[in-house]
Amino acid sequence: MNDAEFRRIHRREIVNDRVNGASQLARQALDSLAEFAGSCSEQDPDALQEALLAFSEELQFARPSMAPIQNLIQRWIDRVEVLPASDMERMRRDAADVAQQLSDASVRAVSDAAERAANLIGPDAVILTHSMSSTVQAAFRALSGRGVRAIVTESRPGLEGRNQALHLDHYGIPVTFITDAQLGHFSQFATLALTGADTLLADGSLVNKAGTYLLALAARDRGIPFYVCCESFKQSTYAADRFELESLDPGELDAPRGRHITPENIYFDITPARLIDACVTEDDVRRLEQAAQGQQ
Amino acid sequence: MNDAEFRRIHRREIVNDRVNGASQLARQALDSLAEFAGSCSEQDPDALQEALLAFSEELQFARPSMAPIQNLIQRWIDRVEVLPASDMERMRRDAADVAQQLSDASVRAVSDAAERAANLIGPDAVILTHSMSSTVQAAFRALSGRGVRAIVTESRPGLEGRNQALHLDHYGIPVTFITDAQLGHFSQFATLALTGADTLLADGSLVNKAGTYLLALAARDRGIPFYVCCESFKQSTYAADRFELESLDPGELDAPRGRHITPENIYFDITPARLIDACVTEDDVRRLEQAAQGQQ
Repeated sequence: MNDAEFRRIHRREIVNDRVNGASQLARQALDSLAEFAGSCSEQDPDALQEALLAFSEELQFARPSMAPIQNLIQRWIDRVEVLPASDMERMRRDAADVAQQLSDASVRAVSDAAERAANLIGPDAVILTHSMSSTVQAAFRALSGRGVRAIVTESRPGLEGRNQALHLDHYGIPVTFITDAQLGHFSQFATLALTGADTLLADGSLVNKAGTYLLALAARDRGIPFYVCCESFKQSTYAADRFELESLDPGELDAPRGRHITPENIYFDITPARLIDACVTEDDVRRLEQAAQGQQ
Repeated sequence: MNDAEFRRIHRREIVNDRVNGASQLARQALDSLAEFAGSCSEQDPDALQEALLAFSEELQFARPSMAPIQNLIQRWIDRVEVLPASDMERMRRDAADVAQQLSDASVRAVSDAAERAANLIGPDAVILTHSMSSTVQAAFRALSGRGVRAIVTESRPGLEGRNQALHLDHYGIPVTFITDAQLGHFSQFATLALTGADTLLADGSLVNKAGTYLLALAARDRGIPFYVCCESFKQSTYAADRFELESLDPGELDAPRGRHITPENIYFDITPARLIDACVTEDDVRRLEQAAQGQQ
């Protein structure tokens, strides 16, 4: 495989992934950079550095709705573009090391955020969740054996909820598995709602799998808290009105065909900060809803 | 086919139907009663009357979440049980005539309610709707050619939204077809939300396909009105806390298998009256939300 093929294939894997969440894909992008640092065919350190930075920019916006990919790659760029281009093997090794360090930091952040969420939630909760999040899975793992139950939506069209349910089943968590449309009915049996995040926007609003806004509305209407749990790498500097929500293949809907019928597959939605009770990261538990009320 | 088989098959058709709405199934039940009045093997008018009434009671609660079946069959019972049991052929004919009259009244009511809704909505509306309703279809037909557009959810697991989209396509209405989970995102592009009803409860709350409560929450959060359009036969005397929501085959979800995973398929949800701006029947436009506020 030549360099161009390597870059195209690795970028496409991230673009087409419907199994992994934003944090996992960010780490996968870092893995691709580390691997490319080793395999790139350039013959001098300057050209290698340039090829690595060009590839990183291709990966950075492969999934525009997922801030951690942009953030972690940006951190990698910031460090790799100031590496001294004196030695070929050192450039290869340093670029790969930086990727590994950032990936490790992301794994630690996910684990710390999940631990903090588990402490906030405590035993015997009935947790309503939507779509799939490795951070939410880690929170459930930390809560296993403590009387916690889950209500999990299937999350059409990607059906990420099936993966989520299987993980929780593996931790011994009792799971009620429902269609997305039943989210409102089942919210009456939950004591709280919890999701991960694809991106946190500058105004505190949340970009996550389509349906999350409905979950937050149902939680508010039932009087139960809605928590978001994610690593701080999910924070974006974009405001909601400048943020691009990814539109994926409408063929995933298997829509009926008609001259006047247009299927749409917007994969994410935006939940305003006023509907989020707390955002839990590796650093702290931020009470967004109270902060928003304080501003009014 | 003997009488018992006839009754079992006709009842089962209504129980298993995922294509037709509550009004259509109520009329189908009346058709079955009319047909049974002709074919029943009983040999004297008293026994025929008794067999007809027994069959009607089997049909009446075949779909416990659908009030019009209960209401129209009750009207039929009220009239058939006072028929004079003097003449065999007359009993057959009168029982069938009563069924036909009630069925005609239902068709007129649906058509009048739809006409009233179309007048309320007016031209150039962008209407967000969920699941399938013949009354909502009739309202769209009345609005065709008037610049109205529709946003239609697929409505898992029965996918009644596909049928709805095809009907609107047939009327030349531009349809944006989405997953149920995208309902929140797309509510920002709608000027109003509209559904039919399976049942209206005594306190003004609405029983309709699961997901309707989420539609109503999104409409309220976006500041657009949520209208319900249905024939008055949908009115039930039950309160929300005494009403049974039908649970259908969880196999329809194709859930992942796990020791701790329990799929649920509650087909309906309850939308409280405070989230309904108006209920349009053949009789009038009732402003429920204002009425609820007046009571506070």
